[in-house]
Parts: sequence; structure tokens; C-alpha cells
Amino acid sequence: MKITILGCYAATPRTFTNPTSQVLELNNEYYLIDCGEATQVQLRKSKIKFSRINHVFISHLHGDHFYGLIGLVSTFMLLNRTNDLHIYGPKGIKEIILLQLKYSNSYTGYQLIFHELENTESEVILDNEKVTVTTIPLNHRVYTNGFLFTEKIKYRKLNLAALDEYNIEKCYFQKIKNGSDITLENGQLISNATLTFDPEPPQSYAFCSDTVYDEKIIEIIKNVDVLYHESTFLETEVALAEKTKHCTAQQAALIAQKAKVKNLLLGHFSTRYTNIELFKTEAETIFKNVHLANDGKVFEF
Amino acid sequence: MKITILGCYAATPRTFTNPTSQVLELNNEYYLIDCGEATQVQLRKSKIKFSRINHVFISHLHGDHFYGLIGLVSTFMLLNRTNDLHIYGPKGIKEIILLQLKYSNSYTGYQLIFHELENTESEVILDNEKVTVTTIPLNHRVYTNGFLFTEKIKYRKLNLAALDEYNIEKCYFQKIKNGSDITLENGQLISNATLTFDPEPPQSYAFCSDTVYDEKIIEIIKNVDVLYHESTFLETEVALAEKTKHCTAQQAALIAQKAKVKNLLLGHFSTRYTNIELFKTEAETIFKNVHLANDGKVFEF
Repeated sequence: MKITILGCYAATPRTFTNPTSQVLELNNEYYLIDCGEATQVQLRKSKIKFSRINHVFISHLHGDHFYGLIGLVSTFMLLNRTNDLHIYGPKGIKEIILLQLKYSNSYTGYQLIFHELENTESEVILDNEKVTVTTIPLNHRVYTNGFLFTEKIKYRKLNLAALDEYNIEKCYFQKIKNGSDITLENGQLISNATLTFDPEPPQSYAFCSDTVYDEKIIEIIKNVDVLYHESTFLETEVALAEKTKHCTAQQAALIAQKAKVKNLLLGHFSTRYTNIELFKTEAETIFKNVHLANDGKVFEF
Repeated sequence: MKITILGCYAATPRTFTNPTSQVLELNNEYYLIDCGEATQVQLRKSKIKFSRINHVFISHLHGDHFYGLIGLVSTFMLLNRTNDLHIYGPKGIKEIILLQLKYSNSYTGYQLIFHELENTESEVILDNEKVTVTTIPLNHRVYTNGFLFTEKIKYRKLNLAALDEYNIEKCYFQKIKNGSDITLENGQLISNATLTFDPEPPQSYAFCSDTVYDEKIIEIIKNVDVLYHESTFLETEVALAEKTKHCTAQQAALIAQKAKVKNLLLGHFSTRYTNIELFKTEAETIFKNVHLANDGKVFEF
């Protein structure tokens, strides 16, 4: 699992900080999560191929999470994209994008498929051979979802020495990876367990931004490998966090602890703080494996 | 007159190039012209005070000319702006901005005043003690206007030596700048011509982007001090220019020559060209005073 942070700051883009956007690479697929203004420029800086992005997830309709989407949709058009683009986001996202395309007299040469969300209960919104994506209803000033990405069980790993010993031809490898036993030409049955090792356990990633401290999400994100949780403020601003429906680093750490996640990734920092290391220090008083997002940073778990 | 180029490239923002936006400073007032994605970041880089911007002019509703407007409107809100903001642009701009504010459940604390344009004939859209702004109807793929900024006649310049000689008190200076004669306490009339010099001649700036080669604009922009004219392509791509309703550097120079402007500023370069100096070379075969826009560049005329 690879997470590329394109932007992780709250509110307004500045010379050296960008609003929320990140790319999750999981099971060889790319998922763009949120798309603040100028996300397409951040994608270029991170050298992420535009054509690899087929699914975009928008948490909520505050500008620092989606103002870059129309620009990306337009650029895909200029690049003569042909692949379908799936956009998952709150009801309204379709109207906003299509209105702007209408006035610019532009039509995408590719299919733009909107999956508008209105449900306040957790639901599966994408389920294929690679991944299951489930919403995490969040408590913010407008309708907001986090997203839980759970990798599908991977193929079994080939035991090359055993395959060699039984002289098994390459054309059977995929079948074996899928878990099949093999019958040799002499009639001998070789069990799959002899020919393979257990696969890597599937990984999971939970993205939770923006939200007030809310223990309701714990059940959904329990035991995930990585939790990205917003921490707009430090505890010194806990009252402001509550008022604006955001979290402090300590509150994010509490959620991580209670949900027994393996790693906590903090982001969505208010631009009022000049030293974001303070977020790590604060969270580490509660939870051990804390990582700090920063624009352009890449995490591999 | 000072022109700060925030972005001057066509189509899509990239790591080191920005879509169209510029700030004109004329007679001590700031005018933002076009507002491509991430214009607010370019404003910060150019250290232009956000609070100085009270008038925004949008030429047309292609993304590279207005996708940054909603972000700027939102940031003004976060900065607790109180001044009115006037937005001049094609019909539709109001619907696009208000729809996004509605879904983000946001209301600006300042007045957002839209002046939607539909007229295909040139018209005065702003006229006050500082400036007259007139539309320049352009011929592009969607409804488009350029903008002609004409400074009002300035105050007469004080002849300090003469004022001193007649012992004229400071409280009369503004009246004298306005052109009044003065009667001394002894009854002697001192003519304004004795006390002042002629003011600097008022300056004018014409912004023309995007447009196909169109001699109809010549009458409107005649003799301006500075003409910004789009030159998306070089003559080698003249057929493509015609097809996409853009201009070449040579065509822009022809317009400059026929309109007898004093200076030609070229911009809106296609990102296909790696050496924009070629635009200057091509235009100079027709017209002498050619300047090349570039992101972050400041021109004073």
C-alpha cells in the first residue's frame, strides 16, 4: 500500500501548502481521494500518471476538498482520455461539474460516471476483484464521508522450488495462484498447499477527514493497517475544534487507540501552526505509531 | 500603469506554468483580469494584497480563465473580507459561483456583486472617477469579451515654486489640482496655469484573450498604450489557430500595427512550445515594441 500526499492542509491554498488530496495505491490500482484546488499540478509534481486514475472519492463539498476536480476533469478531456472516470461524492457534485462543462461548451470524450452519496449509514460503494470501498459517515458541518479501502484476498504465492520439482508448466501458474490443486500427467494429485505459500494478508486504509471527535466511526475502522485522521488543531484549540467540527491531534490519537489501528497518519493541519511536529508530539502521548502527512510525501506500508 | 502577469499559458496548469490571470494597477486601483486555477497562489507569490482587489473581470467561461474564481471568493470569505467584490463576466458566472457556495453551506460576509455580460456590442461596464472599462467583443468558441481600461484625466501637477512664491496655503492645493484659479487676499487673481503643470496623459490598456484574428476590434483599441493580445500559436500552426479560434504571434502583431498601439504584450502561449522567445521574433517582423508575458513578470509602462 502506497499513499502519496498531494496536499494535507486545511482551508486555503498557499505558496507552499496545498489543500486536501492524496493518491492511494492498493493492489496495483490508484484511487484519488479528495481534490483541492490545483490537485492536477500536485499530481504532476508527484509524477503520477493521469491515466492511472479511474476512481475519485470526494469526502464533502467544502472547497478545500473539491475545487480542483473540475480542472482535473477538463485536463483529462484535453489529454484525450478515453477510460471511464468514476466520481464518488455527496449529492450536488454532478450538478456542479456538469454546469461548468455546459457553460464552457465542453463535452468529455470519456464517460463521466457519478456515484452520488446521500446515505448517513455506512455503505459499500465500490466492490470489485481488487477492493471493497465502504463509506465512513463523518460528523462535520456539511454531509461528509470518510472512505474505508479493503483489499481483496490476494493470490497465493508460488513456491517456485516445488513447481520446479514437479516440472509444472507456466501455463498452470495462474490456476495455482487461484488455489487449485494440480494433477500430473502420471495421475498424481499435487495439493495446492504443496505448491504455494499463504498470500500476504489483505491491507486496509481508512481516510477520515473532516470530522469532529466521534467514536461512532471506531466500529467501521477497527484494526485497519493505516488510519488517516484529520487533526486540524492542537489541544490548545480544542474549543475551536469542537465549534468548527474538527479534531485535535490528541483526539485523532484516541480514535486510533480505541480502534486498535496499526498506524495513524495525521493531516488537515490548520495553517496557523508553523511547526507541524507538535501534532506528532501531542498524538504520541496517546498512541505509538504516529506519522505526519506533508505535501509531496510518500508512505509505504 | 503596472501589469503583473500571474499566468499566461493556455489550456492546463502545469508544474511551472499557470493559466491566464493578471493584475492591472492603474491610477492607484487594482483590477484582476481572468482567474485560472490557483490564481490565489500566484497572487500570494507576487505579494499582491488580496484586500486591494475589488473588481474581477472574466473574459469567458473556459476553465483556464475562471476555475480559480470560486477559490478566491472562498478565501476572501476566510480572510473576513468586508469590501464589496464586483465580478464582471459572461452570463452563467453567477450561477456557477452561487451553486458551489450553496453546496458548501457557505455565505460570504461581504457583498458579491455580479455584472453579467451578454451584449455582443462594445459597452461601458464600469465608469468612475478613476477609470472607464469598456468591453471588446471577441470572436472565440464561446461568448468572450476583452476589456479596455482607460484612465480618467488625472489632476494637474502642482508647481511648488509658484505656490511658494504666492504663499498659497496647503488647504487650497486640491482645489488647484482640480484646475481652479485662486484669488489672493489682496484681490489678485492667479490663473491655474501659473500654479500648475499639465497632468500626465491618461493611460489605456486593452486585454484581448481569447480570440481568432479579428480586425473588428481595431476601432475599439486604437492608440492604446498597451495591448495584451493572445498568441496561442506560431504561424507554423496558423490552420490550428483558425480552427480553435486563436491567434498566431504574427496575427497579434498585425492587429497591434493596424491599431497603432504603443506596446504589444503577447501571452496565452500553447504549452507545446518550449521556447517562447520565438513568439517575440515572429511578432517583431511586423511590429516593433513587442514584450513577452511570463508568469510572475511585472511590466511598468
